[in-house]
Amino acid sequence: MIYLDYAATAPLEPEVLEAMHEAEKRFFANASALHTPGHLAMNQIEETRELLASIINAAPQEIIFTSGASEANNTVIRTFEGHEIETSPLEHHSILETTKKYAGDKRPKLYSYMLANNETGDILDLPHEKGAFLHSDLTQALGKIPIDVHKLDLDYATFSAHKIGGPIGVGALYVKEGAPFEPLIIGGNQEKKRRGGTYNTVGIIGFKAALSKINPKVYDTKVRELRDSLAHRILKEIPGSSLNTNLERGKSLPNILNASFRAAEGESIQLYLDAEGIIVSTGSACAAGDIKPSHVLMAKTGDAEVAHSSIRFSFGPDNTMKDVEKVMAVLPGIIERLQKISTIEV
Amino acid sequence: MIYLDYAATAPLEPEVLEAMHEAEKRFFANASALHTPGHLAMNQIEETRELLASIINAAPQEIIFTSGASEANNTVIRTFEGHEIETSPLEHHSILETTKKYAGDKRPKLYSYMLANNETGDILDLPHEKGAFLHSDLTQALGKIPIDVHKLDLDYATFSAHKIGGPIGVGALYVKEGAPFEPLIIGGNQEKKRRGGTYNTVGIIGFKAALSKINPKVYDTKVRELRDSLAHRILKEIPGSSLNTNLERGKSLPNILNASFRAAEGESIQLYLDAEGIIVSTGSACAAGDIKPSHVLMAKTGDAEVAHSSIRFSFGPDNTMKDVEKVMAVLPGIIERLQKISTIEV
Repeated sequence: MIYLDYAATAPLEPEVLEAMHEAEKRFFANASALHTPGHLAMNQIEETRELLASIINAAPQEIIFTSGASEANNTVIRTFEGHEIETSPLEHHSILETTKKYAGDKRPKLYSYMLANNETGDILDLPHEKGAFLHSDLTQALGKIPIDVHKLDLDYATFSAHKIGGPIGVGALYVKEGAPFEPLIIGGNQEKKRRGGTYNTVGIIGFKAALSKINPKVYDTKVRELRDSLAHRILKEIPGSSLNTNLERGKSLPNILNASFRAAEGESIQLYLDAEGIIVSTGSACAAGDIKPSHVLMAKTGDAEVAHSSIRFSFGPDNTMKDVEKVMAVLPGIIERLQKISTIEV
Repeated sequence: MIYLDYAATAPLEPEVLEAMHEAEKRFFANASALHTPGHLAMNQIEETRELLASIINAAPQEIIFTSGASEANNTVIRTFEGHEIETSPLEHHSILETTKKYAGDKRPKLYSYMLANNETGDILDLPHEKGAFLHSDLTQALGKIPIDVHKLDLDYATFSAHKIGGPIGVGALYVKEGAPFEPLIIGGNQEKKRRGGTYNTVGIIGFKAALSKINPKVYDTKVRELRDSLAHRILKEIPGSSLNTNLERGKSLPNILNASFRAAEGESIQLYLDAEGIIVSTGSACAAGDIKPSHVLMAKTGDAEVAHSSIRFSFGPDNTMKDVEKVMAVLPGIIERLQKISTIEV
């Protein structure tokens, strides 16, 4: 299998598995409990909190662990329920739909803009307005480019473990000291009453192992080379192809390539590649099953044909140039076959 | 280590670990993705949904997976935001505090009553009122006694994987077909738009393995025998002791024993037992760190001294009569020592 769907979820890193398997035996206790096994579990959680804080230039008490990025995003939007909320049209559904449902006209205003888009990898400019608050979903950006919440001037930021080789079911929310906050999940005293629910110690330890391994330099060099190589070969070898990702350094994450293939339907391309053992996606997995074209590509290109014929290739540190070659050994033929049976001219 | 804190969290069952470790390699993909690895992951999730549904006599489409019981509880309460909500004073904080914050006077009314209490194990009568909705937190009850959501006449029920030997970070909410529902975490198309967020496939597979193993009969026989034996020996051998759990069959879960030791402080008892390698708790781990006496024991007994001197022993299927003997080899001495230095008379 050639796995090129890292943006949907990254396979669990060996170091993550090792840390979690050890944790399952040593740190299974309820971390809120006052007995020794509870304290030992809590220490692990605090170590993870410190590590994430140091990576993003935050203070440990500004980190709240969640069940994932969607919960973290919902928490920020619900904190600003009834307020003016502005988001980019490229946001994840966990921002767009909550905003549609809960936005109002109260001040102060919240801006929620992702730093890097999950479908195209594009890096966006964040809006800065005095008196307004700024949230950014950094789910795709973490580990791929350096992150500094102060340089980015953020009040809130969302993170996910499973996009960096950690487990699904673990995320984190950065909340700047003093920024408004309403818990979404209320329970006991966990997370200083900011997020109820038994601590997912094993998952958080897996997050720690994944955080320990992140290395944006590998993305900036090796992974970028793979991505760019595939992009250039697609443009050169496949008629009707175009890129939806800006390859220029600093304009996109180095690991995502979104390309369109005129007169070839994205889901058909995906299925044919799947049959060859090549795993890609047509966009966000969260919206899979929708027959509507990707809202991200529609917002970016305004062209339904481009959106319907798009494929996202997302790379990880374990991919090699052989994977690119394998893709290019079959992709041109697949596109040609689909273009032949299409009523749209290439 | 003698672990008697199963009600806080149960150690992961060997079958659960085996299933999860296999799943980490085979089912790591995003279950919402349309490629083969995604479909394979989704099949596992649907199998778990069917298994849980069959265990509680529900339909699979009535089950929504969550990050745990606290999220499930919050979801139900927030669905009834602005409505009249009545709960028992014995509820978990994820019910009590959300209700305090979000209840109103709109009709229809929601009753949220747990079936079995997490601190005492007591089984409670559920209120049934025509035109009102009924939610029950079955977190402690699942696996310990048979559950039938129809016989219990429930509209909503909350479940947690880690109380039955599955992983922390996985829970489920039963929502009766046709009952009102508002998602708490909005995102993509997951769970038929009822709960956003990437599927925690590995965790859900762990839940399945734990569900496959539950056996209320073992609790009704072997575990009950351990619990009752400890209760009787405590009453007989320790001056000033009293039970906060009703041992009568059908009046409590068979695995929880809450006992008070007059003139001995619960946290001190816990620490002395901890030093002997015996892991118990003073009540709910979620409230650990609170200096207030347990709200559950206060509601039940009205006696702060009883509440402050209480210990919860919670058993699992791996405990043996030797564990009871080990507890009784040290507990009388610990209590005697604490009672001697207390200003309260025994």
